[in-house]
Amino acid sequence: MNPRKEHVVTKYYKMPEDEKFILESGVKLPELKIAYETYGELNKEKTNAVLICHALSGDAHASGYHSEAKKPGWWDPMIGPGKAFDTDKYFVICSNVIGGCKGSSGPNSINPDTGKPYGLSFPIVSIRDMANAQKKLIDFFGIEKLLSICGGSMGGMQALQMTLDYSENVISCIPIATAHKHSAQQIAFDEVGRQAIMADPAWNGGDYYNSEHPVRGLAVARMVGHVTYMSDESMNQKFGRMLKKKKLGYEFSTEFEVEGYLRYRGDNFVKRFDANSYLYMTKAMDYFDLQKDKKLAHVFKDLKARFLVIAFSSDWLYPPSQSKDIVRALKMNGIDVTYCEISSNHGHDAFLLEFDEETKLIKHFLQKTFKKAAGK
Amino acid sequence: MNPRKEHVVTKYYKMPEDEKFILESGVKLPELKIAYETYGELNKEKTNAVLICHALSGDAHASGYHSEAKKPGWWDPMIGPGKAFDTDKYFVICSNVIGGCKGSSGPNSINPDTGKPYGLSFPIVSIRDMANAQKKLIDFFGIEKLLSICGGSMGGMQALQMTLDYSENVISCIPIATAHKHSAQQIAFDEVGRQAIMADPAWNGGDYYNSEHPVRGLAVARMVGHVTYMSDESMNQKFGRMLKKKKLGYEFSTEFEVEGYLRYRGDNFVKRFDANSYLYMTKAMDYFDLQKDKKLAHVFKDLKARFLVIAFSSDWLYPPSQSKDIVRALKMNGIDVTYCEISSNHGHDAFLLEFDEETKLIKHFLQKTFKKAAGK
Repeated sequence: MNPRKEHVVTKYYKMPEDEKFILESGVKLPELKIAYETYGELNKEKTNAVLICHALSGDAHASGYHSEAKKPGWWDPMIGPGKAFDTDKYFVICSNVIGGCKGSSGPNSINPDTGKPYGLSFPIVSIRDMANAQKKLIDFFGIEKLLSICGGSMGGMQALQMTLDYSENVISCIPIATAHKHSAQQIAFDEVGRQAIMADPAWNGGDYYNSEHPVRGLAVARMVGHVTYMSDESMNQKFGRMLKKKKLGYEFSTEFEVEGYLRYRGDNFVKRFDANSYLYMTKAMDYFDLQKDKKLAHVFKDLKARFLVIAFSSDWLYPPSQSKDIVRALKMNGIDVTYCEISSNHGHDAFLLEFDEETKLIKHFLQKTFKKAAGK
Repeated sequence: MNPRKEHVVTKYYKMPEDEKFILESGVKLPELKIAYETYGELNKEKTNAVLICHALSGDAHASGYHSEAKKPGWWDPMIGPGKAFDTDKYFVICSNVIGGCKGSSGPNSINPDTGKPYGLSFPIVSIRDMANAQKKLIDFFGIEKLLSICGGSMGGMQALQMTLDYSENVISCIPIATAHKHSAQQIAFDEVGRQAIMADPAWNGGDYYNSEHPVRGLAVARMVGHVTYMSDESMNQKFGRMLKKKKLGYEFSTEFEVEGYLRYRGDNFVKRFDANSYLYMTKAMDYFDLQKDKKLAHVFKDLKARFLVIAFSSDWLYPPSQSKDIVRALKMNGIDVTYCEISSNHGHDAFLLEFDEETKLIKHFLQKTFKKAAGK
């Protein structure tokens, strides 16, 4: 059977009513729902589980095809039989973060107290809250130790946070194209996106679920994002100064190919993403700071996991220097860490494009981790 | 008398009715008005005139104080007695570009055919059109040869264009933090700004002069701009992750200092700038391409002017590599060019901040140019 024809489905975890979920802010979330998918089989000993954490615009659907879908999950070339996350060997879990808009509790969920979507009354969530929610899911599977936790960008932050907070439960960590804290520039770009959404009158203080959505504001936010995801070099190679028409039209319509690309990406995004979730997720990233007033090496001192840290040469949004800061602090604690800077001109997007390089690194790292954990 | 107490005033040039002004698009501008200021005295031989070209958000008011004003012109530390552009020696002219909103013909001017503001019916202008308009002003003064033409960012583009188009009339050129063409990334950032403005319902297709202006969209555009004007390093030094309050508030208000700064800059900008002008100027920059299908060295082959090209180490919006492209093409033609990359962590903003370094370079360059031109 062609495994590509095998359909995957999104499932839902609901926290039992006798359990509580307290957010980092101190607020208690009335109920917790997590959308997730799994690929491969959990072995009897439950020692082959890998958690994949998604980035800003991702969701639980990381691999395979949904029924009727033409496109596979967002990291399909990395997850499947024989792939980096080899589903013949590993049990791969991916869940939608809380605060998201693809099935997990978030601003577009129904508030049980009012019967209406939360909107901005949904409490602010942090990367730690996202990690805690995923820990609930891992516990639900009865998995005591994750073989690995991996993610790019915001996913990498979750991977780092979870490895830190549950150091007994994570055997290895693969943070990709990420940082241990958001810099001023990273906060600034996020804030521009949020302001673009909030400037849209349709946003209406976050209360728009029964009316027109703030699609124009969200499209602008996504456009800002896309410029930061690509490198100057890849933009020049892909678009340069190419025109959509034969010559300049001396008007304000879409004239350059790069303009058309950005508008297309912006317009497409609003069909599949909730503007409020964009606010919540960027806020969670901006709050992210593993270090706070401490030295990073001190923060990492009790870590037991082994690490594979990956960065991309042309990523200027999460530059290799930020990954190197993580690596340095790990090394200072004598932690087993491999660092690889993949040469790529795809900018931050590279983590969703450089499959060959990522596969080589991750496949080998997981195999070694699995053997070590099994005491072989 | 303290020259700082001497007030300057903006004056206006109006093209005589028997002259024509045809834009690069082929459209004839019904009338041409140029707001300008001058500092210092034009000598009898008219050999000491320097033209300063402003950037996106600048205007004709480059130096000195307007009556009642608390702040001087936008490049005041560079222009005045004893300064880089020494008004004891040189006659300095600065004019508002066409398409601007500070007194020169632009989208907020009254269309003589309708008696109403042009709005989007104002024709698209190019950097060449801006240069041609300033040539009219130079002719009005009876200046045959400009001792120098200087500008940063969009101002540098005008300086390059004018030096190329009027090679007999420009003795020297000082392009600062600029490029000979806009790259895909530069177009992309501009397009995001334009889309932010156009997404604001108050923009109303550019027809808003008698109603609420698209202030929210323009503020977002300006915020995007500001992130690109600063460097990651300067943002980290200036703001880092500093909070406005004592601790995180878990809400969407302004929490980080960097957010407050961006909002402040955005909100202030809309008080003094016209959203349509923002569209016209960014469009002019995006159209800017001295090279087109030719080799840049070929484009520069008939140039006679001497050059001082300045770039800043941390400027990632108009990186030093773009200035070096200009320098290389000039050198290939045996043109007298000095290149200086000023070490600064201020990013693109550096051209409006690194006065000491700029002064040293420019003062010396102008003196030498003046002596050479006088045959001394």
